[in-house]
Amino acid sequence: MVKIGVVGATGYTGVELLRLLAHREDLRLEVVTSRELQGSAVAELFPSLRGHVDLEFSAPDSEALGDCDIVFFATPHAVAMHSVPGLLEKGARVIDLSADFRLQNVAVWERWYKTSHCCPDLIKEAVYGLPEVNRAQIGNARLVAAPGCYPTAIQLGFIPLLQVGLIDVTQLVADAKSGVSGAGRKAAVDFLVGEANESIKAYAVHGHRHGPEIEQGLNRYSEQAVNLTFMPHLTPMIRGILATLYAPVAGGKEVSAELLQTHYQDYYRNEPFVDVLPQGQFPATRNVKGANYCQISVNYLAENSRVVVLSAIDNLVKGASGQAVQIMNIMLGLPETTGLENIALVP
Amino acid sequence: MVKIGVVGATGYTGVELLRLLAHREDLRLEVVTSRELQGSAVAELFPSLRGHVDLEFSAPDSEALGDCDIVFFATPHAVAMHSVPGLLEKGARVIDLSADFRLQNVAVWERWYKTSHCCPDLIKEAVYGLPEVNRAQIGNARLVAAPGCYPTAIQLGFIPLLQVGLIDVTQLVADAKSGVSGAGRKAAVDFLVGEANESIKAYAVHGHRHGPEIEQGLNRYSEQAVNLTFMPHLTPMIRGILATLYAPVAGGKEVSAELLQTHYQDYYRNEPFVDVLPQGQFPATRNVKGANYCQISVNYLAENSRVVVLSAIDNLVKGASGQAVQIMNIMLGLPETTGLENIALVP
Amino acid sequence: MVKIGVVGATGYTGVELLRLLAHREDLRLEVVTSRELQGSAVAELFPSLRGHVDLEFSAPDSEALGDCDIVFFATPHAVAMHSVPGLLEKGARVIDLSADFRLQNVAVWERWYKTSHCCPDLIKEAVYGLPEVNRAQIGNARLVAAPGCYPTAIQLGFIPLLQVGLIDVTQLVADAKSGVSGAGRKAAVDFLVGEANESIKAYAVHGHRHGPEIEQGLNRYSEQAVNLTFMPHLTPMIRGILATLYAPVAGGKEVSAELLQTHYQDYYRNEPFVDVLPQGQFPATRNVKGANYCQISVNYLAENSRVVVLSAIDNLVKGASGQAVQIMNIMLGLPETTGLENIALVP
Amino acid sequence: MVKIGVVGATGYTGVELLRLLAHREDLRLEVVTSRELQGSAVAELFPSLRGHVDLEFSAPDSEALGDCDIVFFATPHAVAMHSVPGLLEKGARVIDLSADFRLQNVAVWERWYKTSHCCPDLIKEAVYGLPEVNRAQIGNARLVAAPGCYPTAIQLGFIPLLQVGLIDVTQLVADAKSGVSGAGRKAAVDFLVGEANESIKAYAVHGHRHGPEIEQGLNRYSEQAVNLTFMPHLTPMIRGILATLYAPVAGGKEVSAELLQTHYQDYYRNEPFVDVLPQGQFPATRNVKGANYCQISVNYLAENSRVVVLSAIDNLVKGASGQAVQIMNIMLGLPETTGLENIALVP
Repeated sequence: MVKIGVVGATGYTGVELLRLLAHREDLRLEVVTSRELQGSAVAELFPSLRGHVDLEFSAPDSEALGDCDIVFFATPHAVAMHSVPGLLEKGARVIDLSADFRLQNVAVWERWYKTSHCCPDLIKEAVYGLPEVNRAQIGNARLVAAPGCYPTAIQLGFIPLLQVGLIDVTQLVADAKSGVSGAGRKAAVDFLVGEANESIKAYAVHGHRHGPEIEQGLNRYSEQAVNLTFMPHLTPMIRGILATLYAPVAGGKEVSAELLQTHYQDYYRNEPFVDVLPQGQFPATRNVKGANYCQISVNYLAENSRVVVLSAIDNLVKGASGQAVQIMNIMLGLPETTGLENIALVP
Repeated sequence: MVKIGVVGATGYTGVELLRLLAHREDLRLEVVTSRELQGSAVAELFPSLRGHVDLEFSAPDSEALGDCDIVFFATPHAVAMHSVPGLLEKGARVIDLSADFRLQNVAVWERWYKTSHCCPDLIKEAVYGLPEVNRAQIGNARLVAAPGCYPTAIQLGFIPLLQVGLIDVTQLVADAKSGVSGAGRKAAVDFLVGEANESIKAYAVHGHRHGPEIEQGLNRYSEQAVNLTFMPHLTPMIRGILATLYAPVAGGKEVSAELLQTHYQDYYRNEPFVDVLPQGQFPATRNVKGANYCQISVNYLAENSRVVVLSAIDNLVKGASGQAVQIMNIMLGLPETTGLENIALVP
Repeated sequence: MVKIGVVGATGYTGVELLRLLAHREDLRLEVVTSRELQGSAVAELFPSLRGHVDLEFSAPDSEALGDCDIVFFATPHAVAMHSVPGLLEKGARVIDLSADFRLQNVAVWERWYKTSHCCPDLIKEAVYGLPEVNRAQIGNARLVAAPGCYPTAIQLGFIPLLQVGLIDVTQLVADAKSGVSGAGRKAAVDFLVGEANESIKAYAVHGHRHGPEIEQGLNRYSEQAVNLTFMPHLTPMIRGILATLYAPVAGGKEVSAELLQTHYQDYYRNEPFVDVLPQGQFPATRNVKGANYCQISVNYLAENSRVVVLSAIDNLVKGASGQAVQIMNIMLGLPETTGLENIALVP
Repeated sequence: MVKIGVVGATGYTGVELLRLLAHREDLRLEVVTSRELQGSAVAELFPSLRGHVDLEFSAPDSEALGDCDIVFFATPHAVAMHSVPGLLEKGARVIDLSADFRLQNVAVWERWYKTSHCCPDLIKEAVYGLPEVNRAQIGNARLVAAPGCYPTAIQLGFIPLLQVGLIDVTQLVADAKSGVSGAGRKAAVDFLVGEANESIKAYAVHGHRHGPEIEQGLNRYSEQAVNLTFMPHLTPMIRGILATLYAPVAGGKEVSAELLQTHYQDYYRNEPFVDVLPQGQFPATRNVKGANYCQISVNYLAENSRVVVLSAIDNLVKGASGQAVQIMNIMLGLPETTGLENIALVP
């Protein structure tokens, strides 16, 4: 029985992890922490878990975390890095859903997160946990950085295109639309129903923290450094990310819809959670709501000499907690789809 | 391997049935019918089912239906009754999610549904499929009428109160709020985003088809015929029903919060899908979204000498397809919770 | 030119007041206060006001408030009462949108608002500002307490019924559904999109602050003290209140749909903002969104011997800022509809 | 008193026209037509208009239309063109909110709208009704084609950028997000709450009817024909369009945030309904909900050498009926803002 700890389970990625883990018969939820709610029942905060999770929140510095086989961090940034070294020392393996170990360049991390990193050495050891990219390294890792939500949708959409090498990587655009749950479960005026419903807006127009993570990921697949304009939008829905990705065909290259379609299908043929839609079908975030899938459509607009890729995920599942469980399955040598085959909730 | 047929799977209760049945290893989806879409892939209509359901829609008069062990009808009213006699004859057992066999009084049925019933004899045989009321009869039934969504929420909320006998049954009010998916997946102006979002209204103010079904169910638990004012409301959300139930304490009776709480908890102690919340906690439809639970809170308002029960379900799960699967489990002698333990999708 | 001050204009009732006042040519917005935003432009906080309101927020203790002819308080409770005595002394007239002067019984106020009232003498002078009830007194008042949102919808719906005297006032139920803007524009987890969308719930089940205000208002129209069960619900929309009001016909009384319809129409014949719908039409909150109307439907359910009244308002207009402007018009001797005739925003 | 007719007033642009026209004291609504609802009261279909519009729907072939001074067509495409010649002959002036007279190239129109145009000669006479582009011609026109919703948002955003000539017009991207009301008020499964809420998707991926209209408009401001990738998205809200516009800086050109900001502000300095936001402020559709404004933010992303323009309108106001009223004001020689200064409904 694999022993599991979850740090910071009072947010949306936390409750989503609990939803996905609660019924696993091969695991046991040992510790669920929250500094402010320690001692109160998890199911009192989240009544959806009544009858499924019987634990109380523990203090986050609980000794018991070190006895876990796998510890998930579902914390804001700059929290996990303080605890990870000690946990690794005690033999736990860590999956960090926060940003602390995603960027290999410490200076870039420190600029975007406006604080010093307390364990830059561990950044080198940390494996970037996008299974479709790093499956082998994840399997052996002690510390995995689960990718951000936008980076997951955008990398899965762009990587086959970069890999096939037909586009002008200096002209990439990623126009991404996220549901409001991406902002987390914290008191803030901007995400009230009265502010965020019945409206759409771009935000972080002059730079978003996920930008460098996306570029780092895309540059692995491009000889030339990509020039990506990434523009996130707050969309009036709870869950879901749709990334609309634009890339011009490179000068002198021949492209066709068939070529792209075949390439994408081949590229993801063995991926259990990436679903390339047939020509003429297009993703909607509703079709992956609550499920760990990324649905992708690749389109060639001949008149514009441009490729448009549409990539949809549930930001809390494939964009966070589902992907973290997928990572855990790989780390534990389990079938990767274990506990993750539930179907999207439609309507 | 139990063979399953689903008639009319292009609507919301249909796709929800498929979501709940697709991964069952003890069942095989044999036939999924749709008159208009016969020959096209189910997963083309519902891309959420890609990789989970490989069937094509068949014609509804498919011979193959008769070979199924269990046939679900997820059709509008006055459709199932025409096919059920033939299917029963061939040995299939039927779970009808429509209204055709819910009302024991044929005349009442015909008045509300404005057509003649073609097999009134079968109405007598049909078992009303609320497991919390009729578990034993369901187990042996050939034909089960799955309850309506409002009737499920309202009966589960009111029954223990009627059973304990402390209230004035001539003054019952059920103010019920339903998400828009209750109106089904059919082209109709009233349920467009532009009509039904950002607004709430009562409808069927002078009588709703579920009224007689609710009264029939409540009267089983009341010596005196109940006088129930049932008022449904269209609520700007996709899923969920909240029923707010009001009953005055009968003259001369003594009631307390503790008495009611204990009674409700005892009444539902062995029910896997009815969850009586502790005093001070109240249901919200989000906490049962996508799950087969009914969450109930019973409240005594001493100043008003009135009991208020709050009852929340997902109209498409415990109010329709989840309950139909629960019924099937009972009919097949399986553990009642098989395939139904998934946790609500929060947020 | 009438000089206007608005205290606490950073909330939803504040911005709604500014929307309704900005284009009045007979008024001049002199002072708009906010402690935390003093010195910054109002239109920076609310970009919808760009080009319409050129003011900056002032400190709330601004001397300039005392020079205004009319000062609106759009503050949380227990704020206005500290400033009102001084303002009245300086000759300003006050319209308080908060709860500070709504309840005539000081002890009740102090119990519900959990603080001492600092100027109980002014409570006696304060006029309860429901124009349909108190028009004459409002005209001469120095201090008017604008009614709460629920109390407006519920009183306007119930008053004609109480006045005609055919119902059992010991069995009243008001099941009310409010949009999330009713909770104000303050950082709070409960009203995030991820919490409040796609869900409905009852709240304040064992007592809401508007309860005593409603009872105070209804008792003016009833010989016997009413026994009202008032149950508010948080509804997943921004604006709107629908109150569904239930009342049994009193023993021995004869009621008919025609009688009730005629009575309600007569009762409100001269009211510019109360619209009694014809039989067969029912209110939806969308039809009053952004407008100062209350749409009412009165229904007699003969089988239940019960009257059901449906009453819809926009909680921020007729339920708050629109009504405050209506009050101001009366106080200033202007046509009551001045600046309030805009039509609801449909869809 | 100017006499007004509205053809096809049962849709969303129709009811929005009536909202904007009903209180005009300089106009008289003479005829409001609907084939299917002729003889019934307009305010019965749209209860928001009760007390504001007393007309009944007339047959669309009403003689009375010809007596109007201004006739608005709020009809689907390929309807207006059949009636316009006759109306012009009788002396009426026409503002067509449909697509019939927007494209100067008849062949392109016929390809996209899949029918023959019945009066191509009138296309030449028709004036494209974007006031910011064509104010003078509108003033004298007999027939004005009101622009589409996407074309309004995108042209207003891009035109100053094209005009200043610093960008590579072969690499334009317009990623546009529209509320569901853009699909109109017609029964269609795709726009049900259960389909379109809590989800976002791209649609018309391989070409949208507004594409040629946008290109026609942009090419007026560009020496070289633009290559624009226009991608519309269905967004889970009722009203609003946000267009996110991407353009790379042309090789060898120098751009700065200040230069662009100054240019946009100068360009629109005298436009009453185009509001260029200061640097650091960004549009959200909520800030123009119900109002005739277009809020624009121009941004220079130096690292990407790219300009990003954000342009927000209410699709039913500046994107349809508000703009039509603005056109009418110009045609009648009235102040352009007459009846259009209402403030957006926030929240």
